[in-house]
Order: sequence, then C-alpha cells, then structure tokens
Amino acid sequence: VIDSVAIIGLGLMGGSLARDLAARGVRVVGFDSNRESLQAALEEEVIADALGDDFAGIENVLAVVLAVPVKSAETILWACAPRLGKANLITDVGSVKRGIVTTAEKLGLGKHFVGSHPFTGDHRAGWSAARSNLYKGARVFLCPSAETSDGALAAAQELWSTVGALTQNMSADEHDQRIAWTSHLAQITATALAHALGQQGILSDELGPGGRSVTRLAASDADVWTDIALENGAELAAAIAELEKRLSLARAAIAAADAAAVREFFTVGATWSVRSSPS
Amino acid sequence: VIDSVAIIGLGLMGGSLARDLAARGVRVVGFDSNRESLQAALEEEVIADALGDDFAGIENVLAVVLAVPVKSAETILWACAPRLGKANLITDVGSVKRGIVTTAEKLGLGKHFVGSHPFTGDHRAGWSAARSNLYKGARVFLCPSAETSDGALAAAQELWSTVGALTQNMSADEHDQRIAWTSHLAQITATALAHALGQQGILSDELGPGGRSVTRLAASDADVWTDIALENGAELAAAIAELEKRLSLARAAIAAADAAAVREFFTVGATWSVRSSPS
Repeated sequence: VIDSVAIIGLGLMGGSLARDLAARGVRVVGFDSNRESLQAALEEEVIADALGDDFAGIENVLAVVLAVPVKSAETILWACAPRLGKANLITDVGSVKRGIVTTAEKLGLGKHFVGSHPFTGDHRAGWSAARSNLYKGARVFLCPSAETSDGALAAAQELWSTVGALTQNMSADEHDQRIAWTSHLAQITATALAHALGQQGILSDELGPGGRSVTRLAASDADVWTDIALENGAELAAAIAELEKRLSLARAAIAAADAAAVREFFTVGATWSVRSSPS
Repeated sequence: VIDSVAIIGLGLMGGSLARDLAARGVRVVGFDSNRESLQAALEEEVIADALGDDFAGIENVLAVVLAVPVKSAETILWACAPRLGKANLITDVGSVKRGIVTTAEKLGLGKHFVGSHPFTGDHRAGWSAARSNLYKGARVFLCPSAETSDGALAAAQELWSTVGALTQNMSADEHDQRIAWTSHLAQITATALAHALGQQGILSDELGPGGRSVTRLAASDADVWTDIALENGAELAAAIAELEKRLSLARAAIAAADAAAVREFFTVGATWSVRSSPS
C-alpha cells in the first residue's frame, strides 16, 4: 500500500493528484518552485510537509511523482537520483515518455521507474487550477522502462487507480508516436489558429461558440508545451505537415468552388466524428 | 408587435427559434422538408400549422424566417417571393449574408429584407437538436439591404430581442469578411484536423479532452457547411492560407528544435487567448 507520496510540482496535474491522495489518507509531501503555491498547499493541508530546495525529505517516501514540464522532470530526476534509493515507484505525468524513461535508465533508476501520462487536464495551469477528481475516469498511459520491476508497475497501477483513473500499458515509443496525433497536434492547431486570428486583428472574445471550442487550448501553458513540442519534435512535425496538406486540399476545393469536393471534405470529417463516439 | 411568424426549416436554428417564439405566445407556422420533424413540431404544439409544400399559408404572416442552409435559403426566397407581398419582415439565419441580401434585392424584396446571422449553435443539427433559450444572450448580426426600411430593421431587432438575443448591425460585406475568420476558419480547421487524424487511423474517442475540444465542430452538418464554404469562398480561402502559413512556421521551428521560436509560438497564442476574455 502506498501510504506516502512525494509530488514535485503542485500545478494542475501535481496539485490535483495531491488533493485526491490527501483526501484518501495518503501522506503527501510536496515541492513547488512557486513559493505561494507551496504555501497554499501547506495551509490547505493538502501536503503534510514541504520538501527542501535540494529535495531533502524525499528519501523517506515510497513513491515519487514528478509533475513538472517534461524537460524539467528530466533535470529534477538527475538532481533527486542520489536520494531515491528507497523509493518503490518513481513516476511522472509528462505528455512525452521516451526522454524521461531513457533518463531514468541512465541514472540506474530503471527498475523503479514507470512513465505515466494521465490523459486529462485542460488549458489551465498552476495550483489555482488544481482540483479534486481530475483523474476520475481518466485514462493514464503507463510506459515502463526495459528494466521496470513488476512491483513498480503494480505500484503505478495502484497509485492511479486510487484516484479513479484507468491505466493502459504501452511502450514509450508507441506512446509518443500516437500522442503526437491524439494530443499534441490539437494543441499546435489551436495555437496556430490563434496566431492567424491575432494577426488579422480578431480578438478572442469576438469568436462564437465554435471558434472558442477550437481555440480554447491556445491558452495552455507555454512552458509545458515548449518542452513537449521539442521533446516530440519529429513525430509532431510529421503530424503538422499532414494537417497542412489537408488544409491545402480544402482551400483548393473551396477556391475552385468545387461543390462535390467541398461536400466530400465536410462529410468525411463529420463521419469521422461520429464513427466511434456517439455524442 | 410581431404576433405571427413563419419559419421555414425546423432544424437547430429554426426549431429553437420556433420553440422560444411559441413559448412567448407568438403564433408560429412552419415548414420542413423532413416530414418527421414537421410532424413532431406540430405534435409538440410548437408550430400551430404547417405551410403547404408550395409555402401556401405564408401570405398571412407578418414575419418570415428562412432557417435552411444558405443556398437553399436563396432558392426558397425565389419560390416564396410571389406570396410575400404582405410581410413586414423577411429574414434568415445564415452564416453568410452577401448572397441572400443580393437575392432579396433582385426579387424586389429589399425593403422588407434584413439578413440575420445568430452567432450561436453548435455542431448538432435537426429538430432533435432544437432547444429553448438557444438565443438567450447570443449576438445576432443584422445585415440590411440598401433598400431595407426602418420598420423592417426595427422588426428584426424586435424579433431577436424577443428571444433574448443582442443585435448588431453591419453591412453584408463587412459581415462576410469578418465571419470567415471568427467562425468559418474554425470549422475548416476542425474538419481538416479530423481528416488528418482519420487518415492516420486515429478514432475520435482516442482523443483527450483537448483534442475533443478542437475537433468537436467536425461533426457539424455537411450540407450547411458546404453552402457556407462555397458562398464565402474567397474570404475563406485567404483565411485558410494564413493558417497554413502559421502551421508551417510552427513546424519549421519544431523540426529545427529552435527552442526560442517554439516558446514564442506558444506564448503568443496564450497571450492572444487571454487578451480580451478572462476565462
């Protein structure tokens, strides 16, 4: 049973996890480089104690969760490594998995490391966005290293099921390839649309409900997404190129007033939308 | 006071308007080429009577609302014109305004015609999607013709304020130019993303909450959007080209692992998002 967890980074993902674990009686210790967030988490008694700036205190917990942007997670893993001798489980919440899994292996932490990617959240960030039940019913992709022990994988499954999530195992390679399409491309799309609208002088509150839905993600945290885009650059560039191609085909059909091609464009999109999800 | 209205097309827009007007005591007569929708609207007593297939009965109302796809609205206006001698107000709900305003003028109906574009709705369609209060608090763009009388414009304002909407007057040209960016480009974006995902073998229910938000509009009615895209083709093609350019720039920065440029990309998008709308 995981009765103590250290969470590094108390933003939307880490703060929400801390809230749910604390509510279930788990002793949570935490760290955030934002002093106000850390203080708020202590005052609300979500975390029982704060880790030191050098992560002192982390050696006493059985599970460690890195909940910071992808590149920072790798840096912090290097910094914490000497103190992680006792941890049964070391995991993270990043949206790209190859880099962190490789780093864990390099640091000799592969046996206890399981990469986690909870497929939930929204464009908001920080402790103020952290909330209860963020993980309830959410999928969490688990990417073990080549050396991960059965015990560590079971601990990761337990951690996430404690907060109501459903885990799914896959390799880091497979994860990163798929997620470029199922998540990262949507973020790039929303941000690129925001750029196009902004240069045209359109303000965000001039949009209707549809436009707001498509651009909502553009508000996402720039630090988080800079790391993700750089970490998954090759896969993501290929996905963006495919979207450009589809836009270019649509533009050509519209500019040529090719009614059949335009109708086909919208029909195929609508069919894709309803194929697997009824609402 | 508008105490009788004919609504042609009882889908999301027309059906919702019929519901709200009927609830406020207005006598609504209606038509829909879908017999089941028409029958349902009669049985639920949302419409008091059905117009004939040749729109017989329309000559007795003071206001007529065309709530069908853009091209069909023009066709129906031609068909109804001989019967519209008494109407004080003829309007529509289409998302493109130049064509219908021009058609009204050609038909000698310019004095009584005001183009309306309620900036609300979602990807759903049909009578089953029609609901109360769709227009509450929504913006409705009003585009008078060069010949529209003050009385007709006042009647259009009254009609929409009866159902809780806020009207804003602008020329059809200005409307169509702006709406290509504030609405139509978002639809094309969502549909193009659906194409890109579909060709990669990604199903819609594999997406996370962010991806679902960006692709939701792809489910929109293909007939409605085919008409819109063809009617506003030149403006829309220019907007799509701008989005392609922004995607291409993002792709280049990501492929080159240019951290500063990637960070700038996300930062500008996030800044645009929060500039004018706080949530």
